[in-house]
Amino acid sequence: MQVIPPIISETLSERVRRVRTATETLIGRLRPEDCVVQPVVDVSPPKWHAGHTTWFFEQFLLKDYVKDYPVFHPRYAYLFNSYYEGAGERVQRAYRGNMTRPGVDEILAYRAHVNEHLAAYLDNGREKSEREQFILELGLQHEQQHQELLQYDIKYILGHNPLFPAYIEGQPVASASPVGEVYEGFDAELCSIGFQGPGFHFDNEEGQHRVFLEPFEILNRLITNGEYLEFIEAGGYRNYRYWLDEGWKWVNAQGIGSPMYWFQIEGAWYAYTLHGLHKLDLAAPVTHVSYYEADAFAKWKGKRLPTEFEWEKACKTLSPDIHPNANFAEKGCFGPAAQQNGNPQLYGDVWEWTQSAYLPYPYYTAEDSAIGEYNGKFMVNQMVLRGGSCATPRDHIRPTYRNFFHPHLQWFFNGIRLAASR
Amino acid sequence: MQVIPPIISETLSERVRRVRTATETLIGRLRPEDCVVQPVVDVSPPKWHAGHTTWFFEQFLLKDYVKDYPVFHPRYAYLFNSYYEGAGERVQRAYRGNMTRPGVDEILAYRAHVNEHLAAYLDNGREKSEREQFILELGLQHEQQHQELLQYDIKYILGHNPLFPAYIEGQPVASASPVGEVYEGFDAELCSIGFQGPGFHFDNEEGQHRVFLEPFEILNRLITNGEYLEFIEAGGYRNYRYWLDEGWKWVNAQGIGSPMYWFQIEGAWYAYTLHGLHKLDLAAPVTHVSYYEADAFAKWKGKRLPTEFEWEKACKTLSPDIHPNANFAEKGCFGPAAQQNGNPQLYGDVWEWTQSAYLPYPYYTAEDSAIGEYNGKFMVNQMVLRGGSCATPRDHIRPTYRNFFHPHLQWFFNGIRLAASR
Amino acid sequence: MQVIPPIISETLSERVRRVRTATETLIGRLRPEDCVVQPVVDVSPPKWHAGHTTWFFEQFLLKDYVKDYPVFHPRYAYLFNSYYEGAGERVQRAYRGNMTRPGVDEILAYRAHVNEHLAAYLDNGREKSEREQFILELGLQHEQQHQELLQYDIKYILGHNPLFPAYIEGQPVASASPVGEVYEGFDAELCSIGFQGPGFHFDNEEGQHRVFLEPFEILNRLITNGEYLEFIEAGGYRNYRYWLDEGWKWVNAQGIGSPMYWFQIEGAWYAYTLHGLHKLDLAAPVTHVSYYEADAFAKWKGKRLPTEFEWEKACKTLSPDIHPNANFAEKGCFGPAAQQNGNPQLYGDVWEWTQSAYLPYPYYTAEDSAIGEYNGKFMVNQMVLRGGSCATPRDHIRPTYRNFFHPHLQWFFNGIRLAASR
Amino acid sequence: MQVIPPIISETLSERVRRVRTATETLIGRLRPEDCVVQPVVDVSPPKWHAGHTTWFFEQFLLKDYVKDYPVFHPRYAYLFNSYYEGAGERVQRAYRGNMTRPGVDEILAYRAHVNEHLAAYLDNGREKSEREQFILELGLQHEQQHQELLQYDIKYILGHNPLFPAYIEGQPVASASPVGEVYEGFDAELCSIGFQGPGFHFDNEEGQHRVFLEPFEILNRLITNGEYLEFIEAGGYRNYRYWLDEGWKWVNAQGIGSPMYWFQIEGAWYAYTLHGLHKLDLAAPVTHVSYYEADAFAKWKGKRLPTEFEWEKACKTLSPDIHPNANFAEKGCFGPAAQQNGNPQLYGDVWEWTQSAYLPYPYYTAEDSAIGEYNGKFMVNQMVLRGGSCATPRDHIRPTYRNFFHPHLQWFFNGIRLAASR
Repeated sequence: MQVIPPIISETLSERVRRVRTATETLIGRLRPEDCVVQPVVDVSPPKWHAGHTTWFFEQFLLKDYVKDYPVFHPRYAYLFNSYYEGAGERVQRAYRGNMTRPGVDEILAYRAHVNEHLAAYLDNGREKSEREQFILELGLQHEQQHQELLQYDIKYILGHNPLFPAYIEGQPVASASPVGEVYEGFDAELCSIGFQGPGFHFDNEEGQHRVFLEPFEILNRLITNGEYLEFIEAGGYRNYRYWLDEGWKWVNAQGIGSPMYWFQIEGAWYAYTLHGLHKLDLAAPVTHVSYYEADAFAKWKGKRLPTEFEWEKACKTLSPDIHPNANFAEKGCFGPAAQQNGNPQLYGDVWEWTQSAYLPYPYYTAEDSAIGEYNGKFMVNQMVLRGGSCATPRDHIRPTYRNFFHPHLQWFFNGIRLAASR
Repeated sequence: MQVIPPIISETLSERVRRVRTATETLIGRLRPEDCVVQPVVDVSPPKWHAGHTTWFFEQFLLKDYVKDYPVFHPRYAYLFNSYYEGAGERVQRAYRGNMTRPGVDEILAYRAHVNEHLAAYLDNGREKSEREQFILELGLQHEQQHQELLQYDIKYILGHNPLFPAYIEGQPVASASPVGEVYEGFDAELCSIGFQGPGFHFDNEEGQHRVFLEPFEILNRLITNGEYLEFIEAGGYRNYRYWLDEGWKWVNAQGIGSPMYWFQIEGAWYAYTLHGLHKLDLAAPVTHVSYYEADAFAKWKGKRLPTEFEWEKACKTLSPDIHPNANFAEKGCFGPAAQQNGNPQLYGDVWEWTQSAYLPYPYYTAEDSAIGEYNGKFMVNQMVLRGGSCATPRDHIRPTYRNFFHPHLQWFFNGIRLAASR
Repeated sequence: MQVIPPIISETLSERVRRVRTATETLIGRLRPEDCVVQPVVDVSPPKWHAGHTTWFFEQFLLKDYVKDYPVFHPRYAYLFNSYYEGAGERVQRAYRGNMTRPGVDEILAYRAHVNEHLAAYLDNGREKSEREQFILELGLQHEQQHQELLQYDIKYILGHNPLFPAYIEGQPVASASPVGEVYEGFDAELCSIGFQGPGFHFDNEEGQHRVFLEPFEILNRLITNGEYLEFIEAGGYRNYRYWLDEGWKWVNAQGIGSPMYWFQIEGAWYAYTLHGLHKLDLAAPVTHVSYYEADAFAKWKGKRLPTEFEWEKACKTLSPDIHPNANFAEKGCFGPAAQQNGNPQLYGDVWEWTQSAYLPYPYYTAEDSAIGEYNGKFMVNQMVLRGGSCATPRDHIRPTYRNFFHPHLQWFFNGIRLAASR
Repeated sequence: MQVIPPIISETLSERVRRVRTATETLIGRLRPEDCVVQPVVDVSPPKWHAGHTTWFFEQFLLKDYVKDYPVFHPRYAYLFNSYYEGAGERVQRAYRGNMTRPGVDEILAYRAHVNEHLAAYLDNGREKSEREQFILELGLQHEQQHQELLQYDIKYILGHNPLFPAYIEGQPVASASPVGEVYEGFDAELCSIGFQGPGFHFDNEEGQHRVFLEPFEILNRLITNGEYLEFIEAGGYRNYRYWLDEGWKWVNAQGIGSPMYWFQIEGAWYAYTLHGLHKLDLAAPVTHVSYYEADAFAKWKGKRLPTEFEWEKACKTLSPDIHPNANFAEKGCFGPAAQQNGNPQLYGDVWEWTQSAYLPYPYYTAEDSAIGEYNGKFMVNQMVLRGGSCATPRDHIRPTYRNFFHPHLQWFFNGIRLAASR
């Protein structure tokens, strides 16, 4: 079993502090005004993320395992519960962006309160039960997931503003030369799929089981903006032949003609990045495409998307170690980067759409508590993505990690890798 | 390879006549008023089905393979094309139910015109190419699919009328005693899945490929109304724990509390059937449940739905021959019937929800023509159902047949079979 | 007080029969399929009108004033009540078009049953109370209103069918030469407005009160298709300056560019009429325009619409008698006709949009019963129209008659008369 | 002609500064987070109001009348144009609340820039044309209108937050004893209506014309919370008899059972005010009711709302001078206050719903420029309100002032005065 080594050696307290601080750093680059809004229902206000990840520790850890823990504010559970039916009533999701209070300062105070109690809890000398350890770990993993979402949501908020403000100073990563189109072949094989062994993992990836793969081949890198632009210029968005029926309706109803954040200005293509509006980098991986677009592009190329099982097999084979150029959050690129030095781009850069629907593995069961609502209840009408993105912390990803989104969503860092049966 | 023998020996001309007449018989029991409406977008007007199945032969067979074929009416292609982008403009789906003309009589005249030309074409002595044979066969299979839809749609139209008119005289099939709950076990095995060999099949089931099944067990009959009623009475519709997130929203937004067509009148449960409103038959298979309901019921029982691969394996094993009690359209029950004589109910009665999303098999490609739009473009956000129903003609089903519907739909003859991993 | 003389001398029984038969004649020209549908919520199924007008007599007259009156069917009240909260539960308005049963034949049987009991009631020798007389009269007036609606709704159903079937054989009325643009002037005056005196009238026109009119002038005929076409050709639909804000949003959201039923085919303008699709008659009054369009046209002309009070004053002055060319339902034109012989067109042809909102007169009160729901509860967000149309029976109209519709509606026989302050 | 004297004597420059500063004071009490959101389409972000009122001066005055005026930012016109088609493209209204940039600080800088140029312009010694004077005055009046809207929108934003934060420290005005129900009678009379004479006014009130009033009577104060509570407790919201049809649908679809901001907590009634959540003040005027509610309340009382003409007559008669207790913005109550010292409450407290639709006066024409879009294009489907509110600056109101809102809106400071015909 391939394991990604920890980036740095640190104590648990240090790790908690590092993860919690990362959220505060992300929020800290924003103005208070940026932290409030919810322009579409999928985008949560940045300050809500900061509060919700804090509530998670308060609700599931501190209230249960710290004696006389003083809840910071009696109404915050109502404001910061996301979707846990088992954890009580909450603000309707679509109203999050109307909640101007508590303000950013109050939420930072809430964070400080919980951080302090977390630190004291960790240092109290009592041995923690396995359950406590699990919930603490889940809280950290959960916070890292929201750090990703924060970057998607910040990009949406600023990238839909006519002033196109940059989130962060500096330039996007410099581009590289285009590379060839090499497919790696795999013979038929009965594979082990899913997580087994020690270490953290989500319940949806648990329970190794066997999947038989017919022979296939898979691209040794991600599809680039340049390749995707050829699809656009070939009229790909205007030819129903390449599209799923729902995709074709979506393209026409929404007037879609490119990935999100692409703009054609006086004949030239630009893309909004977290560094502001820049000329489209043709060598960088295409991102912000829906499953419909990824699937249509694949059909136009005469290929298909890989299944999540093919992807997992390819990952374990082609990237037994993480490539030194892997583009994770720690690299500070804030966007996918052109391939370099033979990096197969299986880790980082963009989450890769697979052709697999998000469904339970054979032995899956959700635990019977609010925490059991984490994954299982979403197993319908979503597609699996694999591999992590430029917004994923390096210690958050695994080859067996299953991310999932609805097929029409463009706003997160996703992308395309092609495959074919042989 | 298990093959279902033809019901009766007949010439091709006889078969064409039999299939075409079956549609006319279904329509013939209605009044003209019943044939027009489209109460929800999924329900098409009965007379539209009669016109559309006729247009299919005219568009794809007669216009291409009969010299000087006189098109019946220049605007009918516009009125009766369903969703074939490759076959030109058409009435928006949601407006079908506003088209009072052509009337039933005119559509019957259209059918007669096409039937006559089909008969002449079959008898013209010319040997038919493989392509012609395929399109003719596809036209017949397509018409049989619409015969099923007709029954769903007629039931919807009459079953949502406060007068609850019966579609057909007579009583629903008499009930039977409840039977036990026996699960058949299967060991881990690498199975062949999909259609291979001679005979008609759809492109979505083509290309045998291998699927590895971990050990599982599967119920040897369908879930009954009585069992489903226990779920209702246990508060199943009011407990979020059993529900997928989208299902829970659907239940609450739509106010769902039972399968479609169930009514509680002065404490007793009734169901609308095509024979009118009758006391709920506790021994008959439950039907008109969404995937969300099927999945919630399974979770309440501590089980799950089978995958489509498990189902196919079980069907080939448990039903090498079709059971003499199998309840297909020819039986004239117009609804699912209580289990009898050890019939495992894998064929007929109700389409069985599986836990598999409708996705392409490894070697799938759609042909590049309007006919290629038949199946492939729907491969997202739908679930696979297997086995046929009481509205399926017996010669229309195969163990490899993949039906598919969106998870929220209740209106067709569907049902529940449970499974579990071992 | 100007009074329109009865068309023919007849007994009350004869009149009841004449009015009831007129509905049956209108329905009788349709096929059963045409009688069922409700393509938009404002359009009711023709067979529903036939049932609803019958229910009105049964509910408000026969059940109360005929001993042991046998209700025809216990569920028909549920099916045929329109909006009378005081008369109990009913089918949601938007579902009327899903009710295929009772069929046309059953509704005709319902009509026969009620007609028979009405006839017996009228002939039973008992003197009728004032209340009974009022309800009977109201039932007849109500049925005449629905005869108008029937013609609007039939035109909508057939005119939105791509086959453009004619409702009635024959040609639209032959056209006439264009006439000049003459405005009749009126001095400032304190006028009496509203109905007072013997004879039937609705509660919304009751109670003569005084309205002071500043000097104004008013066109002595209706605006023609030719004049309206000039507005279109001058870009009227693309210039926000002429439009109310809501009108401009409506034009853009709905993609409106002409009156309803106008079609430009290979450069020439056609209009669907109840005689089928014909070249646009430039001399005929424009019809099927919304209030927004009427108002925008007036602004483009540098004029305005008259108030309902100006209209009433002008009508009483310019048309003390009904002009022999007045185009009412009895004339059988089934559409507005070009002006002839100096007919000021104040009666018949089209209902004329006024600039007056539909509001209560000073002394208005609705009676406290289901019948009190007839008019008063609609007095917000609607505009008053005056004068009757080509679909109005001649004995149904008065100078004080106030019709009212929402400003975005095009589907009824409406039109434009201009006015200006002096 | 009754004229309200200016509150204080001041130069034009002082007045400009006073009006502009008032906006900044209102915004200054908020946190940046509060200034961004748009919880419903009618509520604009507070910072948008601050930018839009500034853009108005820049667009219509400075750009046209100050040579080489340096536009502050080239994209701000796009961001801060509200609905002036004549002034170019703009952010869709519903997206205002997604625009986190420019932030509050940038908008305050924008205000300072325009204020400075306004001051310089006023002091440049050049005599201003009548047009310039008009536009400057319009800009000030416009800014005062937005100061009112700011208070409605701030109340909506904070009053829909589960923390119920107060906008301003302190308590609502202390209550007073209930007063009797006295109706003032008026004889029939031909009245002059509308503004004529020197002084600022909007085009919609211009052009004195004559209106004949039949005898009526009108309540000499506003309806109180206590009286409205009786309506609630008498089941007023559950009895269709009192409601306009659209109102009844609104009540049921939206689940309305009280004015906006009323909450029943453990049996007692509370109202959210700009001072936070407080026990309902029974003697204060009821506010935050829709026209539907005002009309239903009036019907329940056996009365009606006055017409705008009756109101104007009553105001000129009963309040020839503004009562010293009149509750305008300058009083700093931030809500309506109980009647005191015989104040007829015709000025201030709450805008009073009238039974008059918002329609043009006889001689009305809008000027043909972007500024002509100010009033005229809204003259459909809205109702007139009169008298100003507790959020209206005292020098902003006149007896002829016509305010207008859609009938379903509750969120602004409105209220009820009853009338009746005699």
